Amino acid sequence: LRNRRWIVTYIEGLRCVRCGEEIGYERVVYSCPRCGGLLDPYYNYNSIAENVKREDVSRRPSSIWKWKELLPVINESNIVSLGEGGTPLIKCDKIAEALGVSELYVKDDALTNPTGSLKDRQISVGVSKAVELGYDTTFTITSGNNGASLAAYSAKAGLKCVIIFTTGATKEKMLMATALGARTIKIKGEDSLVATAVNNVLSGEKPDWYDCGFRVFEPFMYEGRKTNAMEVCESLGWKNPDWVLHPSVGSMGVIKAWKGYKELSKLGWTTGKLPKMTAVQPANVAPIVKAFREKLSEIVPVEPGKTIAEAIACADTGDLGKWTLDALRESGGSAVGVTDDDVVYGLKLLAREGIFVEPSAAVTIPAVKKLLDEGVADRNEIFVCEVTGAGWKNFSFAEGVFGLPKVIPPEEKEIKKFLSEYLENFSA
Amino acid sequence: LRNRRWIVTYIEGLRCVRCGEEIGYERVVYSCPRCGGLLDPYYNYNSIAENVKREDVSRRPSSIWKWKELLPVINESNIVSLGEGGTPLIKCDKIAEALGVSELYVKDDALTNPTGSLKDRQISVGVSKAVELGYDTTFTITSGNNGASLAAYSAKAGLKCVIIFTTGATKEKMLMATALGARTIKIKGEDSLVATAVNNVLSGEKPDWYDCGFRVFEPFMYEGRKTNAMEVCESLGWKNPDWVLHPSVGSMGVIKAWKGYKELSKLGWTTGKLPKMTAVQPANVAPIVKAFREKLSEIVPVEPGKTIAEAIACADTGDLGKWTLDALRESGGSAVGVTDDDVVYGLKLLAREGIFVEPSAAVTIPAVKKLLDEGVADRNEIFVCEVTGAGWKNFSFAEGVFGLPKVIPPEEKEIKKFLSEYLENFSA
Repeated sequence: LRNRRWIVTYIEGLRCVRCGEEIGYERVVYSCPRCGGLLDPYYNYNSIAENVKREDVSRRPSSIWKWKELLPVINESNIVSLGEGGTPLIKCDKIAEALGVSELYVKDDALTNPTGSLKDRQISVGVSKAVELGYDTTFTITSGNNGASLAAYSAKAGLKCVIIFTTGATKEKMLMATALGARTIKIKGEDSLVATAVNNVLSGEKPDWYDCGFRVFEPFMYEGRKTNAMEVCESLGWKNPDWVLHPSVGSMGVIKAWKGYKELSKLGWTTGKLPKMTAVQPANVAPIVKAFREKLSEIVPVEPGKTIAEAIACADTGDLGKWTLDALRESGGSAVGVTDDDVVYGLKLLAREGIFVEPSAAVTIPAVKKLLDEGVADRNEIFVCEVTGAGWKNFSFAEGVFGLPKVIPPEEKEIKKFLSEYLENFSA
Repeated sequence: LRNRRWIVTYIEGLRCVRCGEEIGYERVVYSCPRCGGLLDPYYNYNSIAENVKREDVSRRPSSIWKWKELLPVINESNIVSLGEGGTPLIKCDKIAEALGVSELYVKDDALTNPTGSLKDRQISVGVSKAVELGYDTTFTITSGNNGASLAAYSAKAGLKCVIIFTTGATKEKMLMATALGARTIKIKGEDSLVATAVNNVLSGEKPDWYDCGFRVFEPFMYEGRKTNAMEVCESLGWKNPDWVLHPSVGSMGVIKAWKGYKELSKLGWTTGKLPKMTAVQPANVAPIVKAFREKLSEIVPVEPGKTIAEAIACADTGDLGKWTLDALRESGGSAVGVTDDDVVYGLKLLAREGIFVEPSAAVTIPAVKKLLDEGVADRNEIFVCEVTGAGWKNFSFAEGVFGLPKVIPPEEKEIKKFLSEYLENFSA
């Protein structure tokens, strides 16, 4: 197999996270045929270690596809890319000082990804796989970011794209998807009602679409999220950080980053202890935090409360939460809930570093403070805070918090007033 | 000088574009002290060719700073970076087919730059230089993108930032700047009136601010724009493209990219004939196009007309236009005006490639068609179209062109209606 030039991956199959069943990777299977568990790709790590050097990977153009051996796309010609990944790891000394730690980085997966969120990592892989497997239509139900991304990559690939937005989706995310040619609708109502109604409509008569919506665990695409972890290690000179904090829904962020850190370590490419993974959720909608802190073995759905971090508000994580709990515990990490006030504090600290994100993306900053306050983390450890969605994904929120400039006529008196006020009152 | 570790640049001085006068690079000088002409940094190219290999440059992390020897910042520790540059060169076969050319690339300087526009290349250099020279406040007058960028990098550097937005600035660009902590105001009125009023206020009593506003030619920062050209060559395997089209105001885009292509050629790093540079302007506000086509030796200001490409509408380019004309003619390129209909056509073609930009950024696509129609360009040449500002910089425009999704309740009947309509009527 390996001697055919166009084969880039070392994937060997899919393994059930619950029962260990192994199946092939020839088609999209959404759950284990034996037990219904979630599926996770595995690779021939010995062959990768033998044939690929980390220095060769470093030399490749910056994109998630520099890690192609560890991604599930078989034929290089099927790759659909818009320059996703290769995002900056930004050392943030002002945030570090404010939180009282010595070294803190922000992994900016928001501003420099093509559609402004971390979803581009998974959708680039997903749509590539959709092309490879011959689908002509992509589909998702989404609170927004996944839809904006799916619209972009489907357009690039020449696939039709159908998107159902849920109540929390912002105007900005929906506009981007419609501008990119997706066929879209918004369903207003409780998420569970929406999911039930859509499932009822689609069950039985669902066309053969590539489906990457929530509550549907497409087994290939989330592998793209591992590249976030790999880039962090590469940026740190192939060293593991001590703490990695992810804004968390289910959380594939935690699961796949943890897998990425472990894979690079297994290949012998990284040094240092594996990082402690931490899931961060809005305190009012925090099923993972609750289960982690109450030492439960499974996730129990919570009553959904209000939060400004709408993109990561999920009261019921299903099977995914259990997998996340295992990753958090295996890594020696934690789970943290943050309030709306905490989120605004995080947004303001990020702004001081020139980083403009949406509310859900700012949760990891205040979470560091909580880890320190609880004595779980040490101030001399190295912290990586993931930020996941750009500020322009929710301008109306930004307008409420930060406001718009005053408008004046082109009159010298007015201009002088603005500038003199500035000189007297401005504080850096 | 070169043996001190922290010195990264090979800059030797600033040269007047008009009279050739050479001056030092120890401070910001906005025009030639002898004749008032514009200033352009020059470097010790022989030393660079001797000491730096293009392969070493390629191996560095993706950012404009991999080209640090050819940038004017002296001390590496002064660099202020948010991961700008290293943007993708995207092969666009659907656009190529629609325009009837065989090979066309979009250099996406919009979506994957940290503040969503090409300005990050120049502002990263500018704010780094402001830090190096000890300024504590940055200032600009801007139609938007330059301000959003200046706010971000000034925040990162811990500098105060004062921004005056002109009438055309969109809400999105202003919101980003206020969110990032800049002190902002919008002056509503004709651009020339605004410039006069502000200049009157500032003349004489202007504080010692780092000024990178329009009609002020800060001599260092625009060097950052060269990196766009350098990245294009690197992405093409160190080969020059045949045609490079830039959305053009003055146009520093054309001037500095042309300089970048020439510099790499001078270093022996690239192969092939230098590209033909083309400036693209809205037909209703096109002083460079007029001067180029009428074979004038200087730019004559035009009557400003209406255009949806508000970010590049500039009726009077001043000295800059002359420099641009020289670059266009020296390269054997052209200058093209496009209508609002052309711009929308460009936006829609870009959307089919998954690329969502603001109107002014789409002008280069229809311009290729005009070059072909006029018989100036050949369909078998290699075209690079620059796109310069993200679609989220002007959501209200996008809403007008593409619309928002319909909103429905979570009822099966309504969902079925949406999906069946889709299945019957959707065309890819």
